[in-house]
This record gives sequence, C-alpha cells and structure tokens, in this order.
Amino acid sequence: MGERQVGERQVGEAAPEVRRARALLSRAVEPGSVALWRFVEQAGPVAAAAALRAGTASPAVQALAGARAGEDTGSADLDRAARCGARLVVPEDAEWPAQALHCLTVASSAEDADGRDRTLTLVPPLALWVRGQPPLADVVDRSVALVGARASTAYGEHVAAELAHGLGERGWTTVSGGAFGIDAAAHRGALAAGAPTVAVLACGVDRAYPASHSALFARVLDAGLLVSEWPPGCAPLRHRFLVRNRLIAALTRGTVVVEAAARSGAQATAHRARDLGKQVMAVPGPVTSAMSVGCHQLLRDTEQGARLVTSAADVLEAVGRLGEDLAPPAERPVRARDSLSDVARRVLDACPVRAGVPPERLAAVAGCTVLDVLRVLPALELAELVEWTGTGWRVTATAPRS
Amino acid sequence: MGERQVGERQVGEAAPEVRRARALLSRAVEPGSVALWRFVEQAGPVAAAAALRAGTASPAVQALAGARAGEDTGSADLDRAARCGARLVVPEDAEWPAQALHCLTVASSAEDADGRDRTLTLVPPLALWVRGQPPLADVVDRSVALVGARASTAYGEHVAAELAHGLGERGWTTVSGGAFGIDAAAHRGALAAGAPTVAVLACGVDRAYPASHSALFARVLDAGLLVSEWPPGCAPLRHRFLVRNRLIAALTRGTVVVEAAARSGAQATAHRARDLGKQVMAVPGPVTSAMSVGCHQLLRDTEQGARLVTSAADVLEAVGRLGEDLAPPAERPVRARDSLSDVARRVLDACPVRAGVPPERLAAVAGCTVLDVLRVLPALELAELVEWTGTGWRVTATAPRS
Repeated sequence: MGERQVGERQVGEAAPEVRRARALLSRAVEPGSVALWRFVEQAGPVAAAAALRAGTASPAVQALAGARAGEDTGSADLDRAARCGARLVVPEDAEWPAQALHCLTVASSAEDADGRDRTLTLVPPLALWVRGQPPLADVVDRSVALVGARASTAYGEHVAAELAHGLGERGWTTVSGGAFGIDAAAHRGALAAGAPTVAVLACGVDRAYPASHSALFARVLDAGLLVSEWPPGCAPLRHRFLVRNRLIAALTRGTVVVEAAARSGAQATAHRARDLGKQVMAVPGPVTSAMSVGCHQLLRDTEQGARLVTSAADVLEAVGRLGEDLAPPAERPVRARDSLSDVARRVLDACPVRAGVPPERLAAVAGCTVLDVLRVLPALELAELVEWTGTGWRVTATAPRS
Repeated sequence: MGERQVGERQVGEAAPEVRRARALLSRAVEPGSVALWRFVEQAGPVAAAAALRAGTASPAVQALAGARAGEDTGSADLDRAARCGARLVVPEDAEWPAQALHCLTVASSAEDADGRDRTLTLVPPLALWVRGQPPLADVVDRSVALVGARASTAYGEHVAAELAHGLGERGWTTVSGGAFGIDAAAHRGALAAGAPTVAVLACGVDRAYPASHSALFARVLDAGLLVSEWPPGCAPLRHRFLVRNRLIAALTRGTVVVEAAARSGAQATAHRARDLGKQVMAVPGPVTSAMSVGCHQLLRDTEQGARLVTSAADVLEAVGRLGEDLAPPAERPVRARDSLSDVARRVLDACPVRAGVPPERLAAVAGCTVLDVLRVLPALELAELVEWTGTGWRVTATAPRS
C-alpha cells in the first residue's frame, strides 16, 4: 500500500469509519454467520458495529458476539495489520471481489438465520484481511482453486505444481490454502511461473501456519496475496478451515481437486464449489492410490458434474465453458483506473461525459461484445467510475480520464 | 464336444448341411460383409452357399468371394477344426449368443450393402469358430470386455488382472483379444480366479498369435474359449483386428478400456461398443502416463458417455445400470437343458405341457419377474424347448423334462 498516504482517501476506497466498523465486526463475531451478515446489510456496517457495542442489536446477533461485543478492537486490528503490511478490504472498496463473491450472496438467501453458529453456512465475508500488493479483485478475477490432500503423494505434488505453473503461464492465478502437500505444491508451481498466487488462510495473515511455510508465504507475497477472514493474531482453529473452504470455492472460477482421500476436506471444498455454481474438476490418478480415491469418487458421481482434467489447458477449457472469456489477463495495476482489466478500461473510455449511452453503443465503441460490457459495468460502477443516468451509462465527474 | 456322437444331432444343434454351408461361407468371403450377410439372411445358408458355388449369386456378392467361390472347403474346415478340438457355432445352434449379437443385427440395418469390402462394417458374424468346452452363449451371457494397449505399463497390467480377477470371483466372464499387454493380463487375472475367459482372435483358433501366448491360450481352454470368425489356419491380417474388435464389443455387456494411448485401437473398440449401445468404461491412471491418455480422452468426452471405473464392483455397477440383473452366474452346463441359466430353467419348468400360458403366469410360477421371463423366452424358443401356441407359451414335445 506504499503509494497511499494516511488520512487521504483514494478513489474506490471505503470511508475510514466503514473500514473501522467492519474491522470491529470481523473480530466481534466469528466469520460465517448469516444472521450478522444480514444485520450488517440492513443497518449498514457503521450502525451495525455501534449497535453491537451498545448491546442494542437483536438478541440473536448479540449472542453471536457474546463478551466480545463491547470491545472496540477495530482500530487496533487495523494498526496491527498495517504493521505486517496487511490491509482490511471491505465491500465498499473497489478491490472487493464483488463479482466472484456474488454467488455467496445468492446462496446466503437460502440460509437459515436462526443465529446458530454453524460452520458450513454459505454467506459472504464481512471483510477480508489481505496481505500483499496487488488489488484483491484483480488477482482473483481469473483464478482457479487447486486443492488437495496434505498427505499427498509425489505424483499429486508434481501434478499440482504443473497445473499451477501452466495456469500461471496463461495469466491465471492459483488460489489454495496454506497447508502441506497439494496446497504448497500449487503455490510453488505458480511461483515458478512468476505468476500471482493466493493463499487463503484460516488464521491471521500475520501468522505462518504451518510455521515451516513462512518462507513460502514470503515468496507468495512477492506477487500474490495472503487472505483471511480472521483478524491478525487469530489461530487456525479446526472449524475455521471449513469456513475458509467456502471462500476458496467462491473466490475462483472453479475448483480442481488434485489428490484427495475418500471423505476428505478437498472433497468438501469441491462440494462447496458445486453448491456455489462453480466448476468442479478433478485430476485422475492410479486407481491403486488411496490419495486419488476422492478424485475418482467425484468423477464417478455424475450428480457432482465434476470434470476430469489432466492439464492446465483442460482446466481453462472447463472454466471457459462457463461462457466467460479466456483472453489473456490484465496487466498488474497500481491505481483505481489502472487496476481495471483491458476490457473495462476500453469500456470506461467509451463512456461519454454527458448523455448516457446504452451498453450496445459502448460495445461498438470499445470494440468488444455487449456481454463483455455487461460484465465489466458493475465493477466500473462500484468503483464510481461510471454511472447510470436513467437512459444510459456515462463517466462520473470524479472518474480519472485517460 | 466329447459327448456328441458323429451323425447324431443333439437338441439345439443346427442341421449338418446348415453347418457345412456356413463353414463354406466363412472361408469364401472375408467376414464383415453386410452384402453377404443379407444374402444369407434372405436365401438361407444352404441355398446361399450353393448359389455362391454355382456362381448364381448377385454380382456384388459373387465379387466378394472372387476365386474362392467355387471351392467347397466347408467339410474340410470342419474336419480341421475338429482335429484341434474346435467347432463351428452357427446361428441355428442353441449356443449361438443371439441376445448379445442382436445389437449387430440392428446396427447392420443402417449399413450400406454396396458390396465394398469395408472393414469397419457393423454386421453380425455368419458363424463363429469356437475352441473350448462350455457353450458360447452361456460363457458370454455375463461378460465384460477388458481391452487396452499392447505396450501397457506395469500399472495397467496390474489393474487389468485385478479387474478380471474381481469379475471372475463374481461369476463374470472376461472377454479380450489375445495380444500382449492388457489382453494377456486380463486373461491371467481371470484364470487366477478360476473363472472362464474368452479370447476373441483375428486368426484361426488353431493358431497361437502371438506364438509366445500358446501356453496362455492352452490355459484359457481349461475353462474358457478361443473364438474367431476366421476358419482354422487363417492368418492375423492387420485389417482383421478391426473387424474382430466389433465382435468383442458386441459379445459383452460393456467394454472397459484399461490403458490406451491417444488414438489407439482400444479406443476404437470403445467407440464400437458405444455404437452398439453397450456400456463404455475406462480406467483412469496417472495424467503423466502416455498409456492413460486414451482413457482420459474417453472420460473427458462427455458425448462418449464413458464411465470411470476403478474396480470390478464399479464395472458391475455400470453394466448393471443397463437394467439387467446382477445375480450370480449360472453353473457350468453340459447338455441343452443343462446349458440354461437358473432363471431359464425355472421358466422352462413353469411352462405347461398343453395349453399355453402368458409370461405373467410363468413369472408367478417360476418365482421371477415378467422381465426375466421375457428375457429368457427367446433363448428357450431358439433351443426349441418352448413354443408359442398363439395364446401363450408351452413346452415343446421334444423338450427334455426335469
């Protein structure tokens, strides 16, 4: 965050009080609660945090926080994050991966908001602690999750590294956890291709877990990100991995299970991905290997709709079948406008200053399809770069011009 | 054929002149010709053979035989077969696998009978040279084809043997070719389980090809069969393997590709199986193995409908999904009545001597489903054990009683 100055709010950044409120909420209630998420959606983060501190939220929400409700840890956690080079990314930020996480918003509507602390709830995160330079939304825009067993075989690690390397070469980001085995092999493969990789952790982004991966995480930070729903210092409690798994599935276009034993965590992540409408893929292996049993189970269960993949090209063919483009990735961005993808920048440049124009017109001027335009407009609007006039789209007064 | 005496025709056996005629046709025209097959269907085998010898068949059919048309090799080939313990099984025999081969009859109706000698024609065999004791129809009734690469890996051979062994333990027959690699491993696995196995050859059943498999073929003959469309002495010409492949696919309930390189013969057999409406299955393997590429291609191509199988249980689950029973196999039979499956024998016993009864009544008496009855009645009728009176089914006068 080197270029940002304290006290100066950048285009596409949330207001400080919003960030402080979400930081407080992030620690006050264990992530994954649909009751809290709905309360924040209705009241807004600032009012929701104030109500929680004052003890005036609904009993169900208040019960979720318990003794933690009264403490205002927001500023302290933000300071602690800043000391390790981390930041809190909130839905009000331009770098919030709104498009990817939309599936969780959809899924959460079916969830039961009875206030029980269920760990497998499909609900969007309230905020994400992010360590690393590039904007979160850009890094995960073209990303695939590679997941698998900790007790992986040399075969599985080889394939995980090859897949991540191949995805990286094609401009795609690898997303995984931070565990031994397949997770680590995937990150190493991506790093070897000089590609960004994202480790989504079940503990604070200031903690190296497992400890022997501190050097690996440092290399991830060269071009990628460490991401967590838990504030700095939080421990990797067992149930947090289940909550974390939904985030890996949600952030990516699809999930590849590289190696998995029968009834494994990797299979659970695959089920989450399917529940969220994302592409599920599995790598086959020797039928004699216990570490491929989970993959073969996924592939044999036709209801799962898992696709067999043997290479990065297979993976991209699968996620490309979702109807999205397979064009090369955007360059690494620095500022709000620069953080846009090539298509988004062209659409932005196509927007007139005064009278709004329809998407069809923008597509003609930008030289892309109407589908492309419709895909990038939400992000441009979220970044307050374009606005709807009631009859068409135009640039906002504050939007930087090329 | 030890119990049969020369000149004495058994129940369910074709007339000698029919067998001689089909023996002649078997050598006169290269198998796989839909024009000849239709001619034989229309004229009957005896008249067709006579016409071919006399040169009075249609020019297209006459051209198929060429110089071979005038020679009557039927009796000589039957004698030659008998000397090596082989027989010619014809559609008029009770042991003809009519049910399995019905798919080829259906497929042949779509074939072009222009007389061209095409090797990939889907057409039923005119007759089958069979070496080994058990009746052909019984052995292939519950059978699965295991096919794969000659240049197989130790992994592939291990899996082929395990699958065949598991199928054999569950009373199923393994059908394969006679080649090195997966074919041989499959036969060895079945033999280790003491189960029948069938090698469908592209040369005469008196020839060991490859020569080093003569000991293996001798072991196959202990409980299983060598089967070929070509008369004794015929050489394994290259194009004959393609014609043979359709027979492997047709005789079995499904085809498992254990290992296959890209664009391989095993894949071709799988395509034949699919064309014939049989279940196609493939064994996954390491994505790093060239010998699993063909299997993964089959599994990735959703139009092929190939199922991933990792064990004999998976295979039986797949062929069981065709809606057919997965009951234990019938015991080994000796005579016409004994050669019947358990269900067929019960249905036969349920048939009255005088007034015919409907299948529903037979099912009630036999203690099986109506579907079971409908499935076994054609074979019982073909064996001349039961007959349709116009209002129901009854045993024939010649049927042996229990």
